[in-house]
Amino acid sequence: MLSAANQSSQALRAAVAGARVSATAGRRAASQFAKFNWEDPLNLESHLSEEEIAIRDTAHEYCQENLMPRVLHQWRTEEFNPDILPEMGKLGLLGPTIKGYGCAGTSNVAYGLIMREIERVDSGYRSTASVQSSLVMHPINEFGTEAQKEKYLPRLAKGEITGAFGLTEPNHGSDPGSMETTAEEVDGGFILKGSKTWISNAPVADLFVIWAKCKWDNRIRGFLVEKGAKGLSAPAIKNKLALRVSLTGSVFMDDVRVGHDALLPGTKNLGSAFSCLNTARYGISWGVMGSLEDCLTRTREYALERKQFNRPIASFQLIQKKFADAQTEIALGLHATLQVGRMKDQGKLAPEMVSMVKRNNCGKALQQSRILLDILGGNACADEYHVGRHVANLQVTNTYEGTNDIHALILGKAITDIPAFAN
Amino acid sequence: MLSAANQSSQALRAAVAGARVSATAGRRAASQFAKFNWEDPLNLESHLSEEEIAIRDTAHEYCQENLMPRVLHQWRTEEFNPDILPEMGKLGLLGPTIKGYGCAGTSNVAYGLIMREIERVDSGYRSTASVQSSLVMHPINEFGTEAQKEKYLPRLAKGEITGAFGLTEPNHGSDPGSMETTAEEVDGGFILKGSKTWISNAPVADLFVIWAKCKWDNRIRGFLVEKGAKGLSAPAIKNKLALRVSLTGSVFMDDVRVGHDALLPGTKNLGSAFSCLNTARYGISWGVMGSLEDCLTRTREYALERKQFNRPIASFQLIQKKFADAQTEIALGLHATLQVGRMKDQGKLAPEMVSMVKRNNCGKALQQSRILLDILGGNACADEYHVGRHVANLQVTNTYEGTNDIHALILGKAITDIPAFAN
Amino acid sequence: MLSAANQSSQALRAAVAGARVSATAGRRAASQFAKFNWEDPLNLESHLSEEEIAIRDTAHEYCQENLMPRVLHQWRTEEFNPDILPEMGKLGLLGPTIKGYGCAGTSNVAYGLIMREIERVDSGYRSTASVQSSLVMHPINEFGTEAQKEKYLPRLAKGEITGAFGLTEPNHGSDPGSMETTAEEVDGGFILKGSKTWISNAPVADLFVIWAKCKWDNRIRGFLVEKGAKGLSAPAIKNKLALRVSLTGSVFMDDVRVGHDALLPGTKNLGSAFSCLNTARYGISWGVMGSLEDCLTRTREYALERKQFNRPIASFQLIQKKFADAQTEIALGLHATLQVGRMKDQGKLAPEMVSMVKRNNCGKALQQSRILLDILGGNACADEYHVGRHVANLQVTNTYEGTNDIHALILGKAITDIPAFAN
Amino acid sequence: MLSAANQSSQALRAAVAGARVSATAGRRAASQFAKFNWEDPLNLESHLSEEEIAIRDTAHEYCQENLMPRVLHQWRTEEFNPDILPEMGKLGLLGPTIKGYGCAGTSNVAYGLIMREIERVDSGYRSTASVQSSLVMHPINEFGTEAQKEKYLPRLAKGEITGAFGLTEPNHGSDPGSMETTAEEVDGGFILKGSKTWISNAPVADLFVIWAKCKWDNRIRGFLVEKGAKGLSAPAIKNKLALRVSLTGSVFMDDVRVGHDALLPGTKNLGSAFSCLNTARYGISWGVMGSLEDCLTRTREYALERKQFNRPIASFQLIQKKFADAQTEIALGLHATLQVGRMKDQGKLAPEMVSMVKRNNCGKALQQSRILLDILGGNACADEYHVGRHVANLQVTNTYEGTNDIHALILGKAITDIPAFAN
Repeated sequence: MLSAANQSSQALRAAVAGARVSATAGRRAASQFAKFNWEDPLNLESHLSEEEIAIRDTAHEYCQENLMPRVLHQWRTEEFNPDILPEMGKLGLLGPTIKGYGCAGTSNVAYGLIMREIERVDSGYRSTASVQSSLVMHPINEFGTEAQKEKYLPRLAKGEITGAFGLTEPNHGSDPGSMETTAEEVDGGFILKGSKTWISNAPVADLFVIWAKCKWDNRIRGFLVEKGAKGLSAPAIKNKLALRVSLTGSVFMDDVRVGHDALLPGTKNLGSAFSCLNTARYGISWGVMGSLEDCLTRTREYALERKQFNRPIASFQLIQKKFADAQTEIALGLHATLQVGRMKDQGKLAPEMVSMVKRNNCGKALQQSRILLDILGGNACADEYHVGRHVANLQVTNTYEGTNDIHALILGKAITDIPAFAN
Repeated sequence: MLSAANQSSQALRAAVAGARVSATAGRRAASQFAKFNWEDPLNLESHLSEEEIAIRDTAHEYCQENLMPRVLHQWRTEEFNPDILPEMGKLGLLGPTIKGYGCAGTSNVAYGLIMREIERVDSGYRSTASVQSSLVMHPINEFGTEAQKEKYLPRLAKGEITGAFGLTEPNHGSDPGSMETTAEEVDGGFILKGSKTWISNAPVADLFVIWAKCKWDNRIRGFLVEKGAKGLSAPAIKNKLALRVSLTGSVFMDDVRVGHDALLPGTKNLGSAFSCLNTARYGISWGVMGSLEDCLTRTREYALERKQFNRPIASFQLIQKKFADAQTEIALGLHATLQVGRMKDQGKLAPEMVSMVKRNNCGKALQQSRILLDILGGNACADEYHVGRHVANLQVTNTYEGTNDIHALILGKAITDIPAFAN
Repeated sequence: MLSAANQSSQALRAAVAGARVSATAGRRAASQFAKFNWEDPLNLESHLSEEEIAIRDTAHEYCQENLMPRVLHQWRTEEFNPDILPEMGKLGLLGPTIKGYGCAGTSNVAYGLIMREIERVDSGYRSTASVQSSLVMHPINEFGTEAQKEKYLPRLAKGEITGAFGLTEPNHGSDPGSMETTAEEVDGGFILKGSKTWISNAPVADLFVIWAKCKWDNRIRGFLVEKGAKGLSAPAIKNKLALRVSLTGSVFMDDVRVGHDALLPGTKNLGSAFSCLNTARYGISWGVMGSLEDCLTRTREYALERKQFNRPIASFQLIQKKFADAQTEIALGLHATLQVGRMKDQGKLAPEMVSMVKRNNCGKALQQSRILLDILGGNACADEYHVGRHVANLQVTNTYEGTNDIHALILGKAITDIPAFAN
Repeated sequence: MLSAANQSSQALRAAVAGARVSATAGRRAASQFAKFNWEDPLNLESHLSEEEIAIRDTAHEYCQENLMPRVLHQWRTEEFNPDILPEMGKLGLLGPTIKGYGCAGTSNVAYGLIMREIERVDSGYRSTASVQSSLVMHPINEFGTEAQKEKYLPRLAKGEITGAFGLTEPNHGSDPGSMETTAEEVDGGFILKGSKTWISNAPVADLFVIWAKCKWDNRIRGFLVEKGAKGLSAPAIKNKLALRVSLTGSVFMDDVRVGHDALLPGTKNLGSAFSCLNTARYGISWGVMGSLEDCLTRTREYALERKQFNRPIASFQLIQKKFADAQTEIALGLHATLQVGRMKDQGKLAPEMVSMVKRNNCGKALQQSRILLDILGGNACADEYHVGRHVANLQVTNTYEGTNDIHALILGKAITDIPAFAN
């Protein structure tokens, strides 16, 4: 009965001989322990290269010193700050994974670390950067001509020009395949007609990547449209309840005429747009962890200082459980998305991996940040405490670029081989 | 303002030059994707060595071919099967991380993979193996004399003798430091007095690791007590609602006399017992994921076959969401515990890391398995469908070796530096 | 602008004059308070009539004195105790809302109170009684001929004979409308063909209410089939993980011939079967609250006695929160189902009301009992502590007679007017 | 064995004879059903008196016609609208349960219904009204002299003057007993010294009920302080993330001198302040249900209109489940708080009842509104859709006047008789 097992158990026995040095080291240390670092509980640092750590530290320093002091004013006023993209560009934080064209050519993990640092300050700043890097520079680099790359990428990398990504329409969010925007081929180029909404960066964008259904073959392709094109307008959506430091707008295209060179020739169908979204979603899965980490750091500090019944509230079981839950979800979420980043770096990425970490990390960040917010008591609604702002932002991150439910159904399809989106 | 940032951004720029080949590969593959494997969604396999994979496959084959066919009978009757430990021993599955003494000397990750395969069948079988490996062989190897090691380890490794670990007492579970069992030094050895309860393997154990408070200095140490010692009894606790394939008992010590060679000399205090628990808890964090994976596999198959309203229930959104949630928690839990295993292998383990993955994985396995169970509808209460058995077991795994709440407070203390156990 | 409001505000002003004595009393007492009763936190008692209280007390006494001492043995052995239905019958606990035929003619609230007391001991006993009262006596009383009523109701009320309800089929649980069992009219009566499964009481039933699709018009009707009919068998399903004190079986009908008098003439379609289920579900919504109340009572007592770290564990915040949550859900669930009972008594019942309280109360009882179970620590898996048994049972109650999800979709349809069952 | 039960079962038998007409009516209707009303699923209406319905309808009309059109502007600008309290006063909505002094003398249920209608528009409007009615008019009516009542109540009732309630201090929220504000008796009155924070209405208040520790006996008493008193200031707290339509401020008292007639003589200790909070909390428990009901109404309408994949999203299972959950919690919460209101009307109120419904209703309203918000997708962050505003508000209602955790511990103490606030 055990014969089959016995056979393969030779491998196990063989493992005795081949026991690696690291295991030996581990054994020796069995009753000695490393010191626990509550800010990096499972030692993510041990997986980062020196370059990645340096990039992360650069981003951290910039964000804390330059973004953090501006965030409250921008949140309160919904004013856009035009200096920020150039500053990020100067540091190499835009389109960092692209090789050439003035970009840093970093790993995807480094890109994720940058997003985490930006979103540690505010999801809106990270949105601005995500759009520039993943939704504008990425498709140009991936689907564009050499001329398009040379024309746009260096300036986008420097933050000299701002990009926007026009996919979502007023009537088509989870279901972009039914989009109504069309491209018609005419003499000398194309005519674009239709409208887009909830487009980040749109009101200040110099360059739009517009997705449209091509009338000649009904396929969806991407087009590069520059600000100022006749018939193009991009009014801002104001009075937002979240992401107030990033601009959002609609895009109206009333017979906008563009040249043949506006077409991104590598875009073949909706899959090309999804490729962009996948890159952006991957970045979000890092970013939201940064936001949740900031919530934990701030509420922990508050709870250690705040006394009730003559004791710091951090000493109460009901408070400690909140911290333990948040910390755990941060650690799990970061290690999962690190793994996805490594798979991306190694060309082993499946899009469903991104769905998993985008959905999980956004969902958990939202859930845990809300629980942490309660620790602040009455101060929760004061924006100086910052956590409420994160909570408001994270609701949007959990919804945009694929709602939590849509990603559940993407995973459900992968598990069951049955699509249930329209159920 | 940006000067400091600029300085460290040189590292970022430097990263451009040093961009690794792997990143280049990744870039090339940016719009190509790997195929998603729902059973290993984030590619855990890519982190396992060939030896680890071979060990895992051996364990898998043995468990499915030899444990699975026995589990229902043992569950229904609470009968212990004395063949199982010897079979496991033959394959090298007991005390596998120990070097020498007939043990395989594997990595801690390999140990975890074994636990996962055993618990894929039943948490009770895994408990039996955990106790043998982590709670009996580990302390002998770690705290025992050379003579103790030579006397017991090879026979324990072969499964010729069965071990039990006596720490928990009727009145002291989460608070073992207040234990009432005592050791008194007398001529020729020690007298042990007290009682233990909820001791896995106890009714059939040949060897007990008993923890007692030493009267001469009030420190807690471990003692090796053999079956048959006068005054020792270990009656079984029957009619359990869970873990019915493993035996559980009380241990009564009515002035049990043991020689000086019974003392595990390396044990210095409760920390030594916790070292054993840490190793066992680490194994549990792998094991419960196996149990949850089995729940997912079985309910997925059921949902694909089961039709209601003329459609497989796997096509319903409410079912797919359950799968997506469970799959995500499996992936996150496994990658987190893999990381803890690697840290253990590298001597970088902090005990709180184990608290985190023990707590998270047990809690999530319990939560998700319960949700999956509902998919079975009326069949949920038929033991032939196996998921209900896992659910019952997982409630215990979430409680034993540190309840979910206790581990939350261990983490809470690590985060706040304030103990709240007695709050 | 306020004119319309002003008009109707005359009613408000009128209320000043008509302020009732009770309100005055309330005002006087504004700074005096009643004593809080943790076992009846919102004063349910104040809504019960003297008769209802007397019935409740009778049932309580019987259940605690006569069912409680038997439950462990029956749970462990899955043995049916034939004395129990006759005992209940003697006390008037079977079919209590029916007028005449030896039944008590109580309010529906009284019926609910009885179910609560029985399930305070075990959901299996309540299942046995539910089937007898709601699924067998109710359809005979509602849809039967005078002759059928006179023949069966008095004996069912006394518990002399046991009934079973055959609706669910192996392939049709949530979707009974697709049932495969057929009734064909032949000389002298009907031939029933098909099979049923997960039928409570079936193995010991003397009388079956079988639902079948009538070949002549494709409508579903109910038939009374007596034990011993040729071609009828009802083997027990053993080794259940829950509801082990009640018997469950399959029903196989291999060309079972019954007379014309077997037809319940008032049954017109599936709606008739749903009428029975509605009555049973209403009873379940009371019953599960009793089960959860028992969990709270037992874990509270345990937590007050159990000491860790030199303090009763009832003094820990994490324990108190569990109690507060469970207590709240009990209070809310009971008041909601009381309201449904009153609506039923007054002829104002909508079936969706029953879906709401069945779903909510079963879901919350399951959720909260599981949380309470953890309080028992290692003792959770000892059946002497009873809570684990409730937890196992409550999983089934949450699934049978309409799963939690199905009732969500019933409510969803009521809210949106769109059926989503097959989505 | 059954003798005792038999005895009391006579009551049951007696119930047969006394079966009430209503039960008979119910029986007749057993297979007929009422139509389900998704907006009042368990028929709350059946428990309201004609007067209560009229008051509710008046309040509803006023709020929808007069508050709803103003809410967005006030939310965006944090501007206070001084017309609102007078308008409410004109309709009798302020201090409605008080008898005399120009108040309506309604039932406590009517008061709850008013709060629900106001909060259906915005929690901030309800806060303004709550403070006026429960925290200012109530203590004057309950603890004041006849002169104080005559001086203040009629003007407060008309909304001519605005009140504020100063209990919470910067360092004492959950633990008001440790307050630092003091009252010292001096010639001709008292000197108040200290500061309060998060005081609703404070910046526009004409009258403050200030709680202070009296130096002569260390008891906490209430004082009436009028705007303009020397040393008194009440600056606004701006840039709030929630409750933006109501004003909040700090109160600084720098040796504020008041006359002997400022003391509310009936206030004896902190219990007097808690009496006010209890009344306010009771109102909140109604109010938040109104807010959640508005979320349900709006998201339902949205989901019926919004199409994705060619179908209204209301047809998706994952959406319908959200509706079913929210609807259920609304129904349960309303019926529970109705019961508390009736107990209050009848002088049978225990303060823990209020803790239960305040905690449950706020917690569930917050939880469910957040889930509903996700239905709006990208539109969730547009304030025109109103649900995000409710979500932001409900976080505060769940925290103020006793956080969710504090009320859990109040209930925990009631259940276990052990205080765990400082654990």
